[in-house]
Amino acid sequence: MIDATFTAPIEDRIGLVEERMRAQADGHHAAVGAALHHLLSSGGKRIRVIVTLLTGKMLGADPDKLITLAAAIESLHTATLVHDDLIDGAMIRRGIPTLNAQWSPAATVLTGDFIFSKAAKLAAETGSVEVMQIFAETLAMIVNGEITQLFSSKWVANREDYYRRIYAKTASLFEASTTTAAILSNANGHVTTAVKKFGYEIGMAFQIIDDILDFTSEQTTMGKPVASDLRQGLITLPVLYYLENHPNDLDMKNILASSFCDENCLGRLLISIRESGAIKLSLDEAHQSVQRGLDALRKLPDSSERKALEDLASYIVDREI
Amino acid sequence: MIDATFTAPIEDRIGLVEERMRAQADGHHAAVGAALHHLLSSGGKRIRVIVTLLTGKMLGADPDKLITLAAAIESLHTATLVHDDLIDGAMIRRGIPTLNAQWSPAATVLTGDFIFSKAAKLAAETGSVEVMQIFAETLAMIVNGEITQLFSSKWVANREDYYRRIYAKTASLFEASTTTAAILSNANGHVTTAVKKFGYEIGMAFQIIDDILDFTSEQTTMGKPVASDLRQGLITLPVLYYLENHPNDLDMKNILASSFCDENCLGRLLISIRESGAIKLSLDEAHQSVQRGLDALRKLPDSSERKALEDLASYIVDREI
Repeated sequence: MIDATFTAPIEDRIGLVEERMRAQADGHHAAVGAALHHLLSSGGKRIRVIVTLLTGKMLGADPDKLITLAAAIESLHTATLVHDDLIDGAMIRRGIPTLNAQWSPAATVLTGDFIFSKAAKLAAETGSVEVMQIFAETLAMIVNGEITQLFSSKWVANREDYYRRIYAKTASLFEASTTTAAILSNANGHVTTAVKKFGYEIGMAFQIIDDILDFTSEQTTMGKPVASDLRQGLITLPVLYYLENHPNDLDMKNILASSFCDENCLGRLLISIRESGAIKLSLDEAHQSVQRGLDALRKLPDSSERKALEDLASYIVDREI
Repeated sequence: MIDATFTAPIEDRIGLVEERMRAQADGHHAAVGAALHHLLSSGGKRIRVIVTLLTGKMLGADPDKLITLAAAIESLHTATLVHDDLIDGAMIRRGIPTLNAQWSPAATVLTGDFIFSKAAKLAAETGSVEVMQIFAETLAMIVNGEITQLFSSKWVANREDYYRRIYAKTASLFEASTTTAAILSNANGHVTTAVKKFGYEIGMAFQIIDDILDFTSEQTTMGKPVASDLRQGLITLPVLYYLENHPNDLDMKNILASSFCDENCLGRLLISIRESGAIKLSLDEAHQSVQRGLDALRKLPDSSERKALEDLASYIVDREI
C-alpha cells in the first residue's frame, strides 16, 4: 500500500476494502482463505482501490457501495494476476513467491476462478446493472488482450499494437474504476466522460512507466530480470522510440528479420536503449498522458479528493524513476 | 443436442442461444472464435439451455432476455468444463479432443477466462441484478466444490460429502437455471420456490445418473475409462450403497485403510458393484429425486412447457441406462 498524502481523504476506507475482500473466503474451503490471505499480504499498491475510492468520494457515491465496488475492481485485478503468473510461469511477484510457485497449476487455476466469481459477486452487490456490464466488458478486454499477445507473432514494432495492448492490459481497468465510481454516484454524462478520460490517461501512463522501469530498474527492485519484456519478444515504447531514432541499429535489424536476440544482443540493446533518448521520450509521453488526464479532471469543481487524484497522477509518473 | 419431444416448445430458440454464444467472439482475436466454435461443435446435450428456455417460456419471460440468460448459463457451464478438462488433463470429452489436447495450458486457461467474462456479460445483459447475484454465487459454489475436491483426502465414504459435492458440481447450476428463469419472468415467491426445487432435484438426479453410468457404461460410450471416478479415488453413490450392504468387502476395507486400489482390486470391485444391488439402489434414489422435483413442478398450472419439463425429467433418469 502507498503511504502518501493523496490517500488521506480515503485512508479509513482502504482497510475496509481489504476486509471486504478477505471476507469473500468465508464459508468456503480453508485453502481458499489461505490463498486469498497470501495474495492480499503480498504487497501491491492498491492503486486501483485508491483511484476508485477517491473518484467515488469526490462524486458523492454511497460509502458502502463504493467499498464494495473497489473490492470488486481489486478482486478482478488480483484474479487476472493469479492466472497471468501461472501462464508466465512467474515464481516471484513484488519479491514474494507467487501462488503457482507454491501450489499446483490446478489449484492456481481454480483460485483465480474463485476470485473471478467473487469479483462478479461484489460487482453485482453494487446493485447497478451498468456497473456489471462495464465490469464484464473490462474482463473480456483484459483476457482478449492476453490471448492476442499469446497468439501474435513476437517482435512486432508497431506503435498502434503497443497502445492497444497496454489499453487492454492496464488502462481499461483504470478507466473502468473511474467510470463505475461515477455511475455509482449517479454522475451526469459530462462528469462521467471527464473521469473516464482521467482513468484512461493515468492507466496508459501507468503502463508506459512500468515499461520504462523494465529497462531502468535493477533486477532487485522489480523482482524480475531487467528487460524482461524484450526477453519475451515484447516490444514496448522505449524500444519503439529507440528504433525510430536508430533505424540502422544492427541488433534491431537482426531481431526484426530473424525474431531472435541472444544474451549478447540483449545486453548491447539494453545499454544502447538506456543511453539513447528513448527513455526520456517515453517518459515525456507518460507525462503528456497524465497532463491530458489532469485537463479532463480539472473540468470538475475543486475538492480535496480532486486534489488527491491530481497528486496520485503525479505519483504515477514520478514513482521510482 | 437432444432430439426429443420435450424440446418442441422451444425448438426455434435453441439455435438462437447457440448463435448468441458464437457471437461473443465477434471483435476479438480469431483464436477465440476458433476455440468457441470447437467447443460449441463438440456436442453436448444443451440440457441446461433446454431447462432454462422451458422454465422461462412456461412463466412468460421476455423471449430475447430468456435467450440471453440461457446463453449465459451455457457459457458458464462451458467455461467451467474448459478449466476442468485442463485440470484433469482430460484429452477427450464426448469423444472429441478437448481444447487442452490441442492448445497450450496458457491458451486453455485464457479461453476459459474469456468465456467466463462473456457469461458475466450475458448475465448482465438480462438487466437483472438478482440474476447477476445468483450467477456469481453459482460460479463461486462450483469452483469452491472443485477446490474442496482438490484439497480433500480421497477415498472418503461419506454420504453427506457426496451430496454436497454433486450439488456444487451439477445441481447448483440446474437450480440457478430454473430460479433465474423465474426471476426474469417476475414470478411470485411460490412459483420461484417450486421451479427452484425442480431444478435442484433434476440436477441431483442428473449427477447420480452420471455416476451410475461411470460403472455401467463401456469405455466407448462415455469416452473415458469405466469407473474413472473410483480410479481417481472418488467415491460415488453406487460405491456408498455397495459399502453399506457389504461392510466386510476386503477390497473396500483395504481401500479405506490404505487409500490404495490397484488394477486387480479395481477390476474385482467393478464386477462386485455391477453385480450387487448398488446400481439399482442408486437408480431408485435418482428416481425419487426426480419425483420430488415433479411434485414441486406440478403445483404450477398445466401447460405444454410444464409437460415438456416433466418429459425432460424422465429423460434424465432414463437416458442410456
